[in-house]
Amino acid sequence: MGQIHRAVVLGTGLIGTSVALALAERGVVVTLEDPDPAAVAMAVDLGAGTRLTQDDAPADVALVAAPPAVVPAVLHRAQERGLAHAYTDVASVKTWVTREADRLGCDLSTFVPSHPMGGREKAGPGAARADLFLGRSWAICPTEKTDTHAIAVVTRLAELCGAVPLTLAAQAHDRAVALVSHAPHVASSAVAARLLGGDPTALRLAGQGLRDVTRVAGGDPDMWMEILRYNAEPVADVLAAVAEDLRASATALRSDATEPTVRDLLDRGRSGQERIPGKHGAERQPEFAMLPVVIPDQPGTLARLFDSAGAAGVNIEDVRIDHSPGLPVGVAQLSVRVEELRELAQALAADGWAVHG
Amino acid sequence: MGQIHRAVVLGTGLIGTSVALALAERGVVVTLEDPDPAAVAMAVDLGAGTRLTQDDAPADVALVAAPPAVVPAVLHRAQERGLAHAYTDVASVKTWVTREADRLGCDLSTFVPSHPMGGREKAGPGAARADLFLGRSWAICPTEKTDTHAIAVVTRLAELCGAVPLTLAAQAHDRAVALVSHAPHVASSAVAARLLGGDPTALRLAGQGLRDVTRVAGGDPDMWMEILRYNAEPVADVLAAVAEDLRASATALRSDATEPTVRDLLDRGRSGQERIPGKHGAERQPEFAMLPVVIPDQPGTLARLFDSAGAAGVNIEDVRIDHSPGLPVGVAQLSVRVEELRELAQALAADGWAVHG
Repeated sequence: MGQIHRAVVLGTGLIGTSVALALAERGVVVTLEDPDPAAVAMAVDLGAGTRLTQDDAPADVALVAAPPAVVPAVLHRAQERGLAHAYTDVASVKTWVTREADRLGCDLSTFVPSHPMGGREKAGPGAARADLFLGRSWAICPTEKTDTHAIAVVTRLAELCGAVPLTLAAQAHDRAVALVSHAPHVASSAVAARLLGGDPTALRLAGQGLRDVTRVAGGDPDMWMEILRYNAEPVADVLAAVAEDLRASATALRSDATEPTVRDLLDRGRSGQERIPGKHGAERQPEFAMLPVVIPDQPGTLARLFDSAGAAGVNIEDVRIDHSPGLPVGVAQLSVRVEELRELAQALAADGWAVHG
Repeated sequence: MGQIHRAVVLGTGLIGTSVALALAERGVVVTLEDPDPAAVAMAVDLGAGTRLTQDDAPADVALVAAPPAVVPAVLHRAQERGLAHAYTDVASVKTWVTREADRLGCDLSTFVPSHPMGGREKAGPGAARADLFLGRSWAICPTEKTDTHAIAVVTRLAELCGAVPLTLAAQAHDRAVALVSHAPHVASSAVAARLLGGDPTALRLAGQGLRDVTRVAGGDPDMWMEILRYNAEPVADVLAAVAEDLRASATALRSDATEPTVRDLLDRGRSGQERIPGKHGAERQPEFAMLPVVIPDQPGTLARLFDSAGAAGVNIEDVRIDHSPGLPVGVAQLSVRVEELRELAQALAADGWAVHG
């Protein structure tokens, strides 16, 4: 049940090519198609599969990796051609895609709308990676008409890519991504938009906090407009609530009653932030601690630092490097398990590192 | 002019102790005082200086490193005691502190309100670092009555800490930090607060974007309430504008006229985000590129990776590690100068690394 020996990928951009690479690595025979001949050629060169031909027998599954607006039409044509026994897509909005597919007369019994959570800033097959979905959630949103075999196949597809399948209804999916991705994106844009009014001196007071809050605002407006347009209502609901909280806070700050309104928002914000699963997804998070080490900004320094850490048998979970502009040193923030912090600090100090633990 | 041989630090928390450590490293004789005896004891043990005694002659400068609410009173008492020839503080709001100091009868001719931009998530003298202000901006906000000698001394103080002094008026400072720090903090809280309404499945769809946007919302509500209370008007102005942009976007998304309003906000957000100076401050940014390398999640791996990079003579500017939950591999994103990307990719590939450039 759900075995995948052959797969078709329609659309060899970042997502489609990454899925194809992941499947190919697991021994699946993958065939590829894209309206852009250069995109297919690159995907083939990357080892993602071979070109789809008219003589190919139906595959176990076909993946439509196209922009949301064209998914229903591409799906409809693929089903007319009988390309596979089961179909899925990767659009980041699911209700509209499902409804439009139904309207076009697609066969919903073999269609399993889905959405892998992986992505990158870069686009196109050249940015594809077989590990793009490793450990990421992959939303599976079957329609009421979808048959169980198709669901099993698409679930297996997600697993073959190393993702964690997560079944939920299309509307629940769209509300979820509005909450955790689409509305935060617009909020980030609104904060960043204010910076147009700041003079350069003001911006020199910016720190890491502002960089974090506004990073996603640097994304491609074309791509985001399409996403927002097809998930308008759920995004609008979240944005309206955020706007009202901010409006109320502004009013409170201008009155003598700052405390309850603003304090309540800060408290709710902290509680909400704590609900976000860590990098390791839903798994229990080990406790990590940061160890700052001052390092010269020179080739080879990090190698020597990690040599020292490795010799102590400590696994460094993450590194963040703070540069010191105008000065020949930086600070490497080493993230390690709490119980290994003291051991690492002592080992590095013994090796002559400027540990600030 | 502006030489500092002796300094007093009043308040040995994170900021005060970090300044003291930086000054001590530069040969300044530092004396310390704090209402909490344990805080002074730890600062002394860290080598930040010695306890202030009644017999000490006036120092060149006294730094008031206390919460904003108590800065004016602490300053007033310090001037009464004649602790120094020049005074400064480190509060993140400047207009209120200056006005209140004036109201209390402080001598504004020797007082230079200032605000170093360094900070950490952790608090207290145990988190102090001599390099906390390295390369950071340090806002210097003289009053109309401040004499030039005091300004020169406090400017020198910032320089001794490795910071970049930036002179601006108190009101300009407060508007600037409202724009780049205080209002973004509240906006981050408002986005995070929405997550309280999401079910756990929705939160499992969260990615790095949401983590970035909401990271600062995890900050201490007590500390932030105090900051917001004393910078209420400038923060309210920014928040009201952000709220209005988000309200208008919500309305547009619910109408048939999504495009102009939302698209304009995304465009302005991207332009605003591009105005933020990079990690290296106002200096010209070299162009960096990211090179992803798949690595096993084991001790010693990063050391070997950096050995390979070091052998190629390439300086890795930053590292970000993506873990792959449930799988024994992760992805190290190596940040290097664009012109060194190809060289590094080839060197690492030649050493057997799974480079995904």
